[in-house]
Amino acid sequence: MSFTAPRFAPPERILMGPGPSDVPRRVLNALASPTLGHLDPAYLAIMDEVRDFMRQVFRTKNELTMAVPGTGSAGMEATVVNLVEPGDEVIICVNGVFGGRMKDVAERSGAKVHAVEAPWGQTIAPAAIAEALAAHPAVKLVGIVHAETSTGAMQPLEEITKLVHDAGALLLVDAVTSLGGVPLDLDALQIDACYSGTQKCLSCPPGLSPVSFSAAAVDRIMSRKTKVQSWYLDMSMLKSYWGQERVYHHTAPINMTYALREALAMVLEEGLEARWARHQLNYQALRAGLEALGMKYIPEHSLPSLNAIHVPEGVDEAGVRKRLLNEYDIEIGAGLGPFKGRAWRIGLMGASSTRRHVILVLAALESILGLSGGTTAATKVYG
Amino acid sequence: MSFTAPRFAPPERILMGPGPSDVPRRVLNALASPTLGHLDPAYLAIMDEVRDFMRQVFRTKNELTMAVPGTGSAGMEATVVNLVEPGDEVIICVNGVFGGRMKDVAERSGAKVHAVEAPWGQTIAPAAIAEALAAHPAVKLVGIVHAETSTGAMQPLEEITKLVHDAGALLLVDAVTSLGGVPLDLDALQIDACYSGTQKCLSCPPGLSPVSFSAAAVDRIMSRKTKVQSWYLDMSMLKSYWGQERVYHHTAPINMTYALREALAMVLEEGLEARWARHQLNYQALRAGLEALGMKYIPEHSLPSLNAIHVPEGVDEAGVRKRLLNEYDIEIGAGLGPFKGRAWRIGLMGASSTRRHVILVLAALESILGLSGGTTAATKVYG
Repeated sequence: MSFTAPRFAPPERILMGPGPSDVPRRVLNALASPTLGHLDPAYLAIMDEVRDFMRQVFRTKNELTMAVPGTGSAGMEATVVNLVEPGDEVIICVNGVFGGRMKDVAERSGAKVHAVEAPWGQTIAPAAIAEALAAHPAVKLVGIVHAETSTGAMQPLEEITKLVHDAGALLLVDAVTSLGGVPLDLDALQIDACYSGTQKCLSCPPGLSPVSFSAAAVDRIMSRKTKVQSWYLDMSMLKSYWGQERVYHHTAPINMTYALREALAMVLEEGLEARWARHQLNYQALRAGLEALGMKYIPEHSLPSLNAIHVPEGVDEAGVRKRLLNEYDIEIGAGLGPFKGRAWRIGLMGASSTRRHVILVLAALESILGLSGGTTAATKVYG
Repeated sequence: MSFTAPRFAPPERILMGPGPSDVPRRVLNALASPTLGHLDPAYLAIMDEVRDFMRQVFRTKNELTMAVPGTGSAGMEATVVNLVEPGDEVIICVNGVFGGRMKDVAERSGAKVHAVEAPWGQTIAPAAIAEALAAHPAVKLVGIVHAETSTGAMQPLEEITKLVHDAGALLLVDAVTSLGGVPLDLDALQIDACYSGTQKCLSCPPGLSPVSFSAAAVDRIMSRKTKVQSWYLDMSMLKSYWGQERVYHHTAPINMTYALREALAMVLEEGLEARWARHQLNYQALRAGLEALGMKYIPEHSLPSLNAIHVPEGVDEAGVRKRLLNEYDIEIGAGLGPFKGRAWRIGLMGASSTRRHVILVLAALESILGLSGGTTAATKVYG
């Protein structure tokens, strides 16, 4: 009774949702390189190179910079559970799904969480954080989302980092949808802990989470009185595997590390400033096109990597997404939370941030909705 | 100032350590298929297929069978943190690194752990578990390692599962180094929770952990009084993503899921019994060869997938491994814990369990050590 599995052949999509983004063939080819052992000297050299590349992309000299063996949410959990001990007071800023998730993770770690909230789509006002810090002087950590993937809002961090440090707390930043596409400089901003994902502006498949900790954050971790509740995400042990000691901890996701190496190499070969400028230009073009089609952005400060827009009145939200997928092989995202059924999220991340993507999605929307003028408006931006 | 990264070209090894094992090109090619979105209907269909394949390989009808988005240790943590609430009494059997790790994970979850220990290399006697269960009638969970990767010991489970269930507790089994290579039947053994890794007898790159929970285990999870301490590994939410609801939880490691699909397809195409028999035959041949070379096995009951042997007196343990790697591109493993510097661990897992691997590693050892007779003894086993 022999079995033969059907041929494996997933369709080829154009990924313009909230992530994953299109993955270049060069990265996929690296992913498919022969697997090495996790303690092979050749693999350890690749880890060193990946760490060096991550530091350049994070713009940091942080010694403790590594890839957590899980997706972006594992990076969130890794930063929170290592920096929080039961009973610690923390401030978490919540203006969308991912701030809410960070609050949940912090509560599960035993933290006493003070939430600073803003309506979905808006950014967090520095004054609100100042007020919370004044009201809760024992706060040890402030967590905030740089790029809120659920609303497309981009959070300015300059004022906030000063407030947090003046209060003697550490600053934790979610950069899942910004790293590699939106200006971010860990050392200039004095961010103490930051996590990202591979499948957004880095255009690598999902499965790893680049994280980085400042010296102050490492001190906090190394002077904990309690064990980190997660063995898998315990930075004091992960540090020994990524550091000079090379102490075996877990079997690293070897092939995913290959892909991240190649994706980071492509970021550095393009140059961070050039990449940020590319994301900004394509965002401006898409925005001009969408607005010419009468569509309105949800956030006041939009990310260049993710465009969250209100679905026009009378339009079948899910139906349009389905037609984009079935007729064009284009994936865009739906709304979440209060925007469920009422928003689209169009990503322009990494390899998906090109003129070709912008013009194609606008043309497809025009064709499906019976509108015109979007591609013309976008073309003008390109000049 | 432009940067060009050095060409990425990891060496091609023959993986005969304690994992990862050799990954077939067919699996690597699947890994490199174009990335899909994690909510794409085509991807959801792949998840369904992977779950179906996992159930067949685990030999279970368990509804809650899925791939945890992390390596084998994430699977360990996922099973423990979901089944344990703070203050719960549990028994963890410790006779090597991985039993010790399970104990650590359970303690970090707030469990009151009663350890049942045996010397490294030995298996756990059912009588010792019976005694512990009698001494601690409140015990809710017993954790044990089926295939102890640090010592090569294979743990019989038949008697133990009966003892545990008679005491009203759940049985948790680590099958990281056994699933797909060593006989294991979740439903026949009434195992309540089991986790494995992809990079051992399944011959897929590391990065996912197949897990399965019995109905009784799911009841335990769904009737918890406290939230699971890990958000990332909270089965009540992961269940909603893998189940009919398809509720977004995390961005799944898409491409790794492709690879697992293909690796599981290859297991099922070969047939589980045929695969177990292949592992057994190659183990017997390697064992005959190693013993003909005068080498002694560490465990009384050896796994067919992993051969842990004492390094002969006067032989440079690390030097031989280094020569195997540099001159033959063969990776074998070192000893851990009390066997550090004194043992070799030779894996015959998945695609690395072939006559070619057995004869090659014996011939290479003969050549390096100036011995003979190993390949002849192994050849006799093949008949």
